[in-house]
Amino acid sequence: MYRKLCRSLSAWIMFFLFWREALVHAGVTSSYVRKLSESKDMPIDSLAFRPPSGFNAPQQVHITQGDYDGHAVIISWVSTSQSTLGVLTYSLANDGSESNDVHCNATNYTFASYKSGYIHHCLVGGLMHDSNYTYKLGKGAEARQFWFCTPPKLGPDVAYTFGIIGDLGQTYDSLRTFEHYTASNGQAVLYVGDLSYADHYPQHNGERWDTWGRFIEPSTAYQPWIWTAGNHEIEFSPELDEIEPFKPFLHRYATPYAASNSTSPLWYAIRRASAHIIVLSSYSAYGKYTPQWIWLHDELKRVDRTITPWLIILVHTPLYDSNRAHYMEGEGMRAEFETWFLKYKVDAVFSGHAHAYERTHRVSNVVSYAVSGGCVPAHDRSAPVYVTVGDGGNIEGLARTYIQPQPEYSAFREASYGHAILDIKNRTHAHLMWHRNDDGEVSIADEFWIQNQIWMPRKSSDVVPRRILKKSFSKLKCSVCEQSPLLKRLLNAA
Amino acid sequence: MYRKLCRSLSAWIMFFLFWREALVHAGVTSSYVRKLSESKDMPIDSLAFRPPSGFNAPQQVHITQGDYDGHAVIISWVSTSQSTLGVLTYSLANDGSESNDVHCNATNYTFASYKSGYIHHCLVGGLMHDSNYTYKLGKGAEARQFWFCTPPKLGPDVAYTFGIIGDLGQTYDSLRTFEHYTASNGQAVLYVGDLSYADHYPQHNGERWDTWGRFIEPSTAYQPWIWTAGNHEIEFSPELDEIEPFKPFLHRYATPYAASNSTSPLWYAIRRASAHIIVLSSYSAYGKYTPQWIWLHDELKRVDRTITPWLIILVHTPLYDSNRAHYMEGEGMRAEFETWFLKYKVDAVFSGHAHAYERTHRVSNVVSYAVSGGCVPAHDRSAPVYVTVGDGGNIEGLARTYIQPQPEYSAFREASYGHAILDIKNRTHAHLMWHRNDDGEVSIADEFWIQNQIWMPRKSSDVVPRRILKKSFSKLKCSVCEQSPLLKRLLNAA
Repeated sequence: MYRKLCRSLSAWIMFFLFWREALVHAGVTSSYVRKLSESKDMPIDSLAFRPPSGFNAPQQVHITQGDYDGHAVIISWVSTSQSTLGVLTYSLANDGSESNDVHCNATNYTFASYKSGYIHHCLVGGLMHDSNYTYKLGKGAEARQFWFCTPPKLGPDVAYTFGIIGDLGQTYDSLRTFEHYTASNGQAVLYVGDLSYADHYPQHNGERWDTWGRFIEPSTAYQPWIWTAGNHEIEFSPELDEIEPFKPFLHRYATPYAASNSTSPLWYAIRRASAHIIVLSSYSAYGKYTPQWIWLHDELKRVDRTITPWLIILVHTPLYDSNRAHYMEGEGMRAEFETWFLKYKVDAVFSGHAHAYERTHRVSNVVSYAVSGGCVPAHDRSAPVYVTVGDGGNIEGLARTYIQPQPEYSAFREASYGHAILDIKNRTHAHLMWHRNDDGEVSIADEFWIQNQIWMPRKSSDVVPRRILKKSFSKLKCSVCEQSPLLKRLLNAA
Repeated sequence: MYRKLCRSLSAWIMFFLFWREALVHAGVTSSYVRKLSESKDMPIDSLAFRPPSGFNAPQQVHITQGDYDGHAVIISWVSTSQSTLGVLTYSLANDGSESNDVHCNATNYTFASYKSGYIHHCLVGGLMHDSNYTYKLGKGAEARQFWFCTPPKLGPDVAYTFGIIGDLGQTYDSLRTFEHYTASNGQAVLYVGDLSYADHYPQHNGERWDTWGRFIEPSTAYQPWIWTAGNHEIEFSPELDEIEPFKPFLHRYATPYAASNSTSPLWYAIRRASAHIIVLSSYSAYGKYTPQWIWLHDELKRVDRTITPWLIILVHTPLYDSNRAHYMEGEGMRAEFETWFLKYKVDAVFSGHAHAYERTHRVSNVVSYAVSGGCVPAHDRSAPVYVTVGDGGNIEGLARTYIQPQPEYSAFREASYGHAILDIKNRTHAHLMWHRNDDGEVSIADEFWIQNQIWMPRKSSDVVPRRILKKSFSKLKCSVCEQSPLLKRLLNAA
């Protein structure tokens, strides 16, 4: 009687453990259906695109972090004439004295029949942390004034809030995403690629870069957007005699790459508050011995989790994403870098490219290559969470079709427009929230507490690794398995 | 009695089929051991490196195919002074009239403290197929005369012999490889990357590019070498303020990339005799949407197997190779391109990088990625043969350690210096031979008849696919399996 009781109890414990694991890792495909109207670009004369008054008034003003640790910004803008070069003054808010100690350069470019305005980039350094600065561009009646806040000094428990936006474009849905984000408490944007979608137009109409720059100015003039290049930035067009990849993007959007010893603006790193942000380029060479590979190899060694506990990677093409759009396009980079993401215990990888939202469990698949078995992604505590936020709203529309059934690595997925927020609380916890555009209201449709991989590694994991589960099963006497067809089925399914 | 006889007979037939498959696909790791002396670079003043007499005598003369179909050559050389620019005349052999209708340019470069001579590239077009031309470079007493043969007109049954050399360097072993090759009947060399190993030296001593150019001149002045870039050509050296990848290589070695609509000299295609040769760059971007990816996508569509039945790919990093050196470094590119190699039924892929020789069976592994099982390479009739010929002899020495046990995809492997020959007979058959340097004698250590994937696809294959084998086994009554422990073991092993 006693033995029978023990056997039943063991069976039910195993049953419970199995379903607990199944429930914890059951992926969710949201059934939310938004109004299925097409995404249309806002017309050129939209209010969102209206240039400031004045012939040479600075426009498309945007800032980004200017150095490695947040003591500097790069302030950029476009003007019709070159004469506004260097005409930038800045001061601490409420401090009367203005400084114009800045290093500026101006550039312009042509693309097919388009000729850009003058694009100015000014490096403003030696700033104090956690301070509010105002800055003024231009002269006389055309002068425009803005402000920004520098980040807090680096530190492991420094709270900071990042927005994550990708594949924005310039449709009415883009506008809603943008409005929702600017109403949030995001302090800087991690932009995961595919900016203006100007390449959608004949000859990649450069004016659609200008409209985009003006569209996002209400945010970019006041807080840094950290840029990642997407495929829509490549603009490789031999048919237009334009074969220099990323030409408009690299002219318009500066990055502080030299500060992290990079030799290319397409891959670089910054530290901000308690985060170490690494930006990679899906569309540059990344094989072993290439410049990007060498740089990442060295940069990961520089990460100090006692100063910046949160190690975040931005890369346009997802390494794990179960949308049919661009499915498995990240395999090439995954083959190169995934083992490093595990070794260095990256906290999160944010991507775009698939026009939908998805969050994965912590998974890896590093033993599956040419010669070994076991090639299904497995839960892996050392792995980052992979988050796709490619749902900014661009003209290509939503990617509504997912791989079925939902793969085990996928935790949540929904094809809706929106943006994400990563609210870092301290060294141990960060709150990831995905906000769906809900036709006027901000709606949190997914949220997840990310535990820091170094400071709060998962000990009593809510994951029961499959191998432990199988081991537990195998310890049961065969007779128990035989007596329980349900358990037998569960064992086979595990 | 009759039933017993049938069962035994079936068992023995299955046994035979299994062992036939096992024997056909048993990989061979050659046990040949060559003299294990180190590979040392030949000294700068070696005979092999001696410059021609005369202050400005053209040196490092080399030719390559100059167009898509073999009507042109690019003749290149180096001189101390720029004055030899355009001083090239050529004529049909035995035809007195000389022509100087050539298009030339000259370039030079610096690398760290090295300053190159003048590097001349002349395009000589409008040549007749299957003809012998002489050409003369330079003036007066310093003039030097050479010759070359144009290939036959393109055609499906045109016989042609290619040499394959990789990772040559400039050691005494390199000299032996070179001597062995030049004694062969090779008509053009498919060079699979890693040329001079000048980057082995402090500041990548550019003189070691010059020595290498003179070293190989006895072949390169007379027959085209088709260039692939390897990792030793990258020479990305921020510590020397040299961050332009491939700088010396691209200045010195021209390729006819524009003729195949490529926008980069690092990836291109030519057609020669009955072969369509595609050259890829392991160390350039190759992800979807990148220029190389777009170009290959389009180039593969242009392949016409009724004109050039033999589709050959050259790429420095192998996609399949079981040497411990650089093991699985080709996974990133394999993820991008392997399905195309199957779709277009590439005949062979030649690579270098691992300093040894290896030939694979026709295998693929395209269902193994992030989400599915079955990720061990499987025999695949649509797949190319992958051949690594990275054993030219360079200063880094041989890569002697292989993955054990020998993977199923590996047919033959040996860590010895040597070169390969691909002797195309007609549209259906090509003879691949690997010649080991045997301390003075040319020794064929591996040979294989490649059947053309289009014109002689394998019908009655010498491969018994594993699934057929398993199906056959499963048809046996269980009782037979039970009666034969050997068969049972074989079945489990299959």
